[in-house]
Amino acid sequence: MQTVTSIGEDALVRRLTSDLPQDESVIAGPGDDCAVVAGPANGRHLLMKTDSVVEHIHFLRETPARLVGRKAMARVVSDIAAMGGQPRHALITLIVRRATEVRFVDELYQGIREIADPIGINIVGGETSRGDTTVVSISLLGDVSSARWASRSGGKPGDALFVTGCLGGSIKGKHLTFEPRLTEAQWLVKKFPVHAMMDISDGLAKDLPRLAEASGLEFIIEESVIPCSSDCSTDQAWGDGEDYELLFAVSPKTAERLTREWKDQFPDLLLTQIGHLVPIGSGVIPTFQNHGWDHFKRGA
Amino acid sequence: MQTVTSIGEDALVRRLTSDLPQDESVIAGPGDDCAVVAGPANGRHLLMKTDSVVEHIHFLRETPARLVGRKAMARVVSDIAAMGGQPRHALITLIVRRATEVRFVDELYQGIREIADPIGINIVGGETSRGDTTVVSISLLGDVSSARWASRSGGKPGDALFVTGCLGGSIKGKHLTFEPRLTEAQWLVKKFPVHAMMDISDGLAKDLPRLAEASGLEFIIEESVIPCSSDCSTDQAWGDGEDYELLFAVSPKTAERLTREWKDQFPDLLLTQIGHLVPIGSGVIPTFQNHGWDHFKRGA
Repeated sequence: MQTVTSIGEDALVRRLTSDLPQDESVIAGPGDDCAVVAGPANGRHLLMKTDSVVEHIHFLRETPARLVGRKAMARVVSDIAAMGGQPRHALITLIVRRATEVRFVDELYQGIREIADPIGINIVGGETSRGDTTVVSISLLGDVSSARWASRSGGKPGDALFVTGCLGGSIKGKHLTFEPRLTEAQWLVKKFPVHAMMDISDGLAKDLPRLAEASGLEFIIEESVIPCSSDCSTDQAWGDGEDYELLFAVSPKTAERLTREWKDQFPDLLLTQIGHLVPIGSGVIPTFQNHGWDHFKRGA
Repeated sequence: MQTVTSIGEDALVRRLTSDLPQDESVIAGPGDDCAVVAGPANGRHLLMKTDSVVEHIHFLRETPARLVGRKAMARVVSDIAAMGGQPRHALITLIVRRATEVRFVDELYQGIREIADPIGINIVGGETSRGDTTVVSISLLGDVSSARWASRSGGKPGDALFVTGCLGGSIKGKHLTFEPRLTEAQWLVKKFPVHAMMDISDGLAKDLPRLAEASGLEFIIEESVIPCSSDCSTDQAWGDGEDYELLFAVSPKTAERLTREWKDQFPDLLLTQIGHLVPIGSGVIPTFQNHGWDHFKRGA
């Protein structure tokens, strides 16, 4: 059995980086102290995001490595998407136990590249270290039109709130196999004035209040319309984490056209108006029991 | 006792990010899905680097948190320095046990900022997660003049090889308290045609062959001139890791002027010519017993 210990660090890094596809904007990729990438064209902002998946928390020891890698990359892509941006360059940090099989690392990278390659993301560096728990941490640099990008904080009173897809129950598998809504988010910011947007990673119960608070607002939702994954209650759809669907706010005047054009553009992906943003003091706290994911509080 | 579990993730993040200094180039810092930063001016390349410190490997449970944070930030700054670049924006990933005291995290950030603040590094985001081992992973975006930057691969046959400072024995404390050679590296690339440069993180024994190999060359060193830290043998100076000094190659014609101007500019920091680069087949393998740090092989 080949282990990361038996082949050594340099061989491991060479193995992981020797055939990475990179476009002409990468001036120096893996193998130097830093990755060097050409600056974006004028009119673009850079986007930086880092996110990690940790054994026991985001995946289990028996989770196939390919799905662990896929999830790690899909999570950061989802965040770049949530700004309306384009992912460009990634740094991959792997922390693995000494006895980790090389096959595990190979399959992990296979999963990372299942997401990265079709999007054209350059893996420009990273590092490997050993540790007592397996951790995959990915930093992603992207860019976005400086004229059209979606923060969480631009919501306006009266804005219609939409979510993509179905929510809840991702623990049954979707948390590993979800598709980041990159195409959809880019289409949205290009076609419509999106006031605020984010991806739903910790559950609507956590993330909707975050979007409202960032916009200096509260919200009213219609509890019965929340789109539920099969075999999920509305309570689960509200509180379960790791949906990685989009939550966004647009003017109510935009809502109807958006709904219509969405159906033409993405006929297979549900889009649901779940409520609207309201001024501070006018919001209604939903009656659900499920309060969303907290990285420290859950499982106490 | 306040723990990260008792205050919850959002409060922890607010605590860590509420008073971070940021310059006007940060368009959106912590609190959104991504950090947004203005693109660099023309004639600059972006630099991306990520690096982590892991409990039991890079620090011990009893290591003061401030020094852990300091080390985590100083390591990535050292890598940006090694290109001749300027650090700009950082993302901080903290993986901590559920029972970790908030004070630990506060002190950790204090250490991070001891390095970051004087340099003007913006901490533009990051994330916290729980895990079974404490990990601090930092991604740093920097930039560098596209006309004058130092890779590892530009060494030429006959180039003089220099190292800064003294090497070896960093485990006694320097691995936690070292000063990244940022000022020195920026001065070097500005004043001299530096053919190749890197920071010595895994020991000269590992890193010098890397620089030579990246340049398609081998090396000859004068073993007796390797600058040793006090109480260290030359063998230790050759093989011990975590010196974070600079190793660089310049034309032999440049070497004398460089040595002279260095003494005027940095009178308190030793600069030593340890040997030179030679064509493949002409190198001499040093006689040392110590073979440098490997993240997976060491301690087998």
